[in-house]
Parts: sequence; structure tokens; C-alpha cells
Amino acid sequence: MYDLLKGLRVVEGSAFVAGPTCGLYLAQLGAEVIRFDNIGGGPDFNRWPLSRGGDSFYWEGLNKSKKSIAIDLSRQEGRRLAQELATAPGDNAGAFVTNFPVEGFLSYEALSALRPDLVCVRVMGWADGRPGVDYTINSAVGVPLFTGHADDPRPVNHILPAWDLLTGGYAAFSLVSALMARGRDGKGREVRLPLSDIAAASLANLGMLAEATLGEGDRPRVGNDIFGAFGRDFTTADGVRIMLVAITPRQWSGIQPLLGIVDEVKALEAELGVDFARDEGLRFTHRDRLVPIFDAAMARRKLADLVPAFEQLGVCWGPYQTLSQAANDPRLFAGNPVFSTLTHPSGETYPAAGFAGTVPQDERKPARPAARLGQHTDEVLATVLGLSSAQIGKLHDDGVVAGPEGR
Amino acid sequence: MYDLLKGLRVVEGSAFVAGPTCGLYLAQLGAEVIRFDNIGGGPDFNRWPLSRGGDSFYWEGLNKSKKSIAIDLSRQEGRRLAQELATAPGDNAGAFVTNFPVEGFLSYEALSALRPDLVCVRVMGWADGRPGVDYTINSAVGVPLFTGHADDPRPVNHILPAWDLLTGGYAAFSLVSALMARGRDGKGREVRLPLSDIAAASLANLGMLAEATLGEGDRPRVGNDIFGAFGRDFTTADGVRIMLVAITPRQWSGIQPLLGIVDEVKALEAELGVDFARDEGLRFTHRDRLVPIFDAAMARRKLADLVPAFEQLGVCWGPYQTLSQAANDPRLFAGNPVFSTLTHPSGETYPAAGFAGTVPQDERKPARPAARLGQHTDEVLATVLGLSSAQIGKLHDDGVVAGPEGR
Repeated sequence: MYDLLKGLRVVEGSAFVAGPTCGLYLAQLGAEVIRFDNIGGGPDFNRWPLSRGGDSFYWEGLNKSKKSIAIDLSRQEGRRLAQELATAPGDNAGAFVTNFPVEGFLSYEALSALRPDLVCVRVMGWADGRPGVDYTINSAVGVPLFTGHADDPRPVNHILPAWDLLTGGYAAFSLVSALMARGRDGKGREVRLPLSDIAAASLANLGMLAEATLGEGDRPRVGNDIFGAFGRDFTTADGVRIMLVAITPRQWSGIQPLLGIVDEVKALEAELGVDFARDEGLRFTHRDRLVPIFDAAMARRKLADLVPAFEQLGVCWGPYQTLSQAANDPRLFAGNPVFSTLTHPSGETYPAAGFAGTVPQDERKPARPAARLGQHTDEVLATVLGLSSAQIGKLHDDGVVAGPEGR
Repeated sequence: MYDLLKGLRVVEGSAFVAGPTCGLYLAQLGAEVIRFDNIGGGPDFNRWPLSRGGDSFYWEGLNKSKKSIAIDLSRQEGRRLAQELATAPGDNAGAFVTNFPVEGFLSYEALSALRPDLVCVRVMGWADGRPGVDYTINSAVGVPLFTGHADDPRPVNHILPAWDLLTGGYAAFSLVSALMARGRDGKGREVRLPLSDIAAASLANLGMLAEATLGEGDRPRVGNDIFGAFGRDFTTADGVRIMLVAITPRQWSGIQPLLGIVDEVKALEAELGVDFARDEGLRFTHRDRLVPIFDAAMARRKLADLVPAFEQLGVCWGPYQTLSQAANDPRLFAGNPVFSTLTHPSGETYPAAGFAGTVPQDERKPARPAARLGQHTDEVLATVLGLSSAQIGKLHDDGVVAGPEGR
């Protein structure tokens, strides 16, 4: 947590990964993020993974450091409250993140009537408004068909919701950029971010669209090999599987004496008439010959014997470890200053990520847990919408809003 | 391409995916992004995929819409030029994106001596400075061990460089946020963004760290099933594989009459004593019983017969298609207004992505191709560093810089 966006107020009405991730990133840089939810929780409030007590680790992970107000969004009066929140006044307010539909009570048209300079970032599935989630977009752009081992033709879905996460980051970037533009021209804007556009643009940016249509055609599955370079998984004498990559000239030339395979690689180069050092693509083209040389050398050495030399040479490698093993890795979770250990709404105590990086010039502040649903209902109604205690009490009595007792 | 960041100048000295993606995103929102490279190109200049002529589709994809200056970075004079570029004056300048090491001639210490209010975003591998790339970080956080089909224990690397792309988006967000902070407090900052922190924080944000350490333990591989919900791949009577997801109550209740399986699902609920409509987790828990019912129903219907009903009900689905098939999908590439068809430095003409979304209030501008390496060397030296023709000529004569002829 840092204070780069201190003073900014953002309202979030969103579910699943991308929208809440956008709000989370903004909160982690110091923005006040107020999230509204239906009383009882939105469609993602009970999503897996769950704690032993049945609370969603997912929801409380994605909604850390935000305030929560619970509203009955099925009713006209509740919808009006959500509109007023999204468009509440203030120079450093009027920023709204949502995945509600383009049409409806949270449309830009409806909201900009209340605040013409509103900046709204709207996460969508498909650009035409059809429903789409990470998994259905991913299958449509072809990634599962080139993921996996070459000897198994089944498509492999990715488990990491990569498009969702990227859309969340892109949304946070877009929102701050639109606020900068508003600071210059005074204009409100809606930025519509469909997962389908994010996915299509990303594959094109990586050169893969051109490859598929003008180059070698659809990329074959190459298992755990890195396409077009030297890198794959190897197993050491003590049975540890590692990912080893040699991309830079130093990495490529350094790893060979370390493994004692200089002469073998030279002999292969002579036989094939190639220079692997000068062209990383050739290391990929001839991987069926190169990999066995590395395989045999790795199988003769224990990882503990390799690591000091890896460190000295700046070899690029990583172990394959489970997430529960990684939890004890001091460079990832245990001991990583990005994390603070907190008690979350589930009642469980575990490390929570703050801003995923470091600003050496600024003081890092600890992450804050997610709110209980409706924990800030009264505070938000009073401070953001300026309602009196009597007005707030009536909203409770009418069931339009709920506090943390409402679950 | 939109003008949200018009007037902002960003200097980029970076390679591979994350840094260049950050610069690309900034350029696509209208920033002037000036990229410096070693004469002859950096370590990613010839990276696969390649055009038939041997040019990198990858490099020209990630460096669209940027200006290019080529400098001999092995020489003191060239390094000084890079430092001066990164720290050149101007209220809307002094923003630098890099993946050069924390120490060295592009350290924040060296640069902030030239411009104390410099905003620098530095992409790293591991937070401690050790080399790491998407693949080696991914294996260390455990994703390959829970990716893939349950009947195959081999880890599966993701092919999409998801951590790189996310880091690029996060870097762009961080950079504009640090510029906002500078606008408020006048301070320069370095934001260090290690892929290792991005990956660790992301898995924690999704609740997976808590799951692995406090919940059910390491997630098993579930093939193409969506963890904790209903969704997986099905094959229709005409052999088309689709990803089908029923997350919302409407999606779940709508799909059953459409497939004619209402009674079968009811009978299963009665047998198991569960209510699938009320708890999406139960749909996952009992997927071994549910999926065969859906499998059989899908195998009786052709996709063309299903699609109209899918559309009417708002079913969330996507085809599994190859990228070359997706290239003709009007919602993804062909006909998507995010793309403009351009001739790139490789000489090939193909669609290039601009900003991956839509701002209905603003005019979209077409994407611009990558520059040839060194295409803007003279222009940048003259306009940004204020050098005279004689000075620029001498730099060329001394081999410190090169124009587009330098390759």
C-alpha cells in the first residue's frame, strides 16, 4: 500500500475478477474505494475457494482495503442510491468501476445525466455485450489449443484467469488515464473494456496473429518448451523438476561449462552446421537434439550442487513447486514485504498482498482486510451522500440498505 | 488509439514483454513513447515468431506506435545519451520505463541525480534482482502443477506469458499513478515491479494462497472444469468443442430446458439431496454426476441448432477455435474496430491492435506501426536533447548512434 492516489475516491459496483481487481489496485495505491453490493452479496460473494467456515477466500482477497455498502439493487430506491454514489460530487471523485451492463440503471447515459464529467470504466465480456468470461474468451482466441504436451491433443484451459487479471490492470490504467484527461479537458468518459478485445489485442501484440495468418500458421503445442528460444523443464539427479531458461548470450554460454557439455554441444553444432550462440531460434528448432544433452547432464547432478553455480552465473531458473510449498518461499510469500498478515472477514489470519512492488522513496503501509458486507453503509451514506441519521434510519427500516448485520 | 495521455512523453529502454507492453499501452492512449535500443537491436529484436523474411512479428507487435532511437549502449557516450533521454526536461516528461538492472548506468540513483522528479517504472524478475522470466516465476508459484488434465501428472506451462502481460498493465497503471502523485507533491519515484511479486500477489488476491495453506490444500488439477462452479468443455453432435459456463442463476436455470435435461437434473438433486440452483459449489462437487447428463444432451445437438437458443437465453459459451480460425471471427479480429490494417516494418500487412477497448465519447485513431530501428534517431536528438545537426552528425560519425541504415 502506497499513497500515490491519496485523495481520490472511486466507487465500484462489480463482481468476479476483473472489476474488483481494478478497484483493488486503486485501493492499494491509496485511493478510497467504496464498493456497493446487493444486500446479502453479489453473484461472487460465496465463490470458491472457501474457508473452513464457508466464507469466500476469493471475495475477501479481491476486495481488500475497500469500504462496503450494502444496497437492495432490485428496488428503484436502491438503484437511485447506487447512481448517486457513482456520481457523487467532488474534484477527486466521479470515478466509477463496474461490470454492470452497458444498458440499464448504471448505463453511462443515466449516470452522466447526474454528473457529466463522470469517468466510468466498464468491464465487459464480448464487445457486443454478449456474456463472456475468461474461460469462454480464452477458448475462442485459441490459447487452449496450443497449451499442453505435444502427445495429447486435448485442449488445456488455463487455470489462472489471466484475461481477467490483465483486464483489471488495464482498467486501473485506463481509469487513471481518463482522470488525467479530465484534469486537462474537463470531459467525462466511459471506457468500455471487453475481455474479448483485451485477449485479441494481446495475442496480436505478441506477434501471434501475424504468425498464425502470415507465418508458420497455428503454433503447435510444444509442451513446456519455450517457443523460439531455449528453455524447458528438467529433472535433477535428486528428482527435483526445474524450469531452466537460457535467453541471453551470457546465460547460454555460461550454462554449458557448468553442466560439462561444451564439447557435446560443439559437436552437435558442427554436425548440424549451426551456431547456437548466435541464434536462439536454432536452439528451439533443434531442441530434439539439444534437450537430451541437457537432460543427461541434469540427471547427473543434484539441485543443491547446481544452485551455487546457477547463482554465480546468473542462470535463469525456477523450481516447480506447489503453491503450498511456495507459501514458505521467502522470496514469494513468507518474508515478502509486499504481504502483511491480517485477520480477514472469514476470521482466518493469513498474509494479504498490498501493492505488488516497491517504491523505495515512500513508506510502505500494510494492506487492510476486506470489509464485512455493509460495514460502511452508514458512514458512506452520511459522508458521501450527506444523508442525515433520520434518512439513513429510514433506508434501513425500508430495507433499502443494510449494515453488517444484514447477512 | 485515443488521446487520453496526449502531451505526455515517456522514454522506454526495455526488452521482452512486460516493459514494452507498458510502453505500448501508454502509446495507445496518446503518449509520445520514445524507445531506445542498442544499435542492431536489443536481445528481443529477432525473437520468434518471425515473418517469412526473418523479421520479428513479436518485436514489431510490442513496439507499435513508438519512436525509435538506436544508441551504442556499450559505450560511455551512448550510456550518457540514454540517461539524458530518460531525464530530459519538461513538465509532461521525466517518465521512464525500463527493465535494466537496479544497479548500473540506468539506476534510479544515477538518473535522479540528473532529474530529481523522475518517475521511473522498473520491471524486474525476482524482487531481489535475480533473473526471472514469466516461465521460471510461473513454475515457482505452482500454476503449472494445477494446470492440465487430471489423468496426466506432468506440469503444464502456460503458453500465454500472463505474468508478463499483467506486469505490463500494472506498470502502465503505476506510471500514470506516480505522475499523478508527482503532480500533487512534486516528488520523483521509482516503482519496482518484480514479476515474482505480481505473481505472488495475484494468487493471493484470488484467494488461492489461503486455500492452499488454510483450506483444502493445493488445488487438484481439474482439466477444463471451472473450479468451484459449473463450466467445462463439451462436444456437440457435429463434433464442435465448446466451453460452456453457467454461473449466474439465469444461466443455470436457462440451459436445462434448452438441453431437455430438467427432469434428469431434478432426479439427481433428489438422489443427492442437494439444490444446484442455490449453490454453484455443489455443481462442481458433483460434476462427475452432472457432466455426463450435459455431455449426452450436447452430443444429441448440432451447434447451429443450439446457438439461437444460447443467444436468446444469454448463455455464456465460446467455441474452441484455433487462432487462425479466430482471425476470421468478426468479433475478435476481422471487423473489430480495435484493429487497423497496417504495413509493418517486416513489410507484411496485417491487422494491428490499438487501445483494447472503446471510449464512445472520443474519436478512435488508427494504430501506428512500429518504427524501424533508429528511424527517429535524429529527430529525437534534435527535439528532445536539443542537439545541433553538427553534434548529431558527429555522434553518427563516432558510431554512438545510428539511423535506420544501421541494421
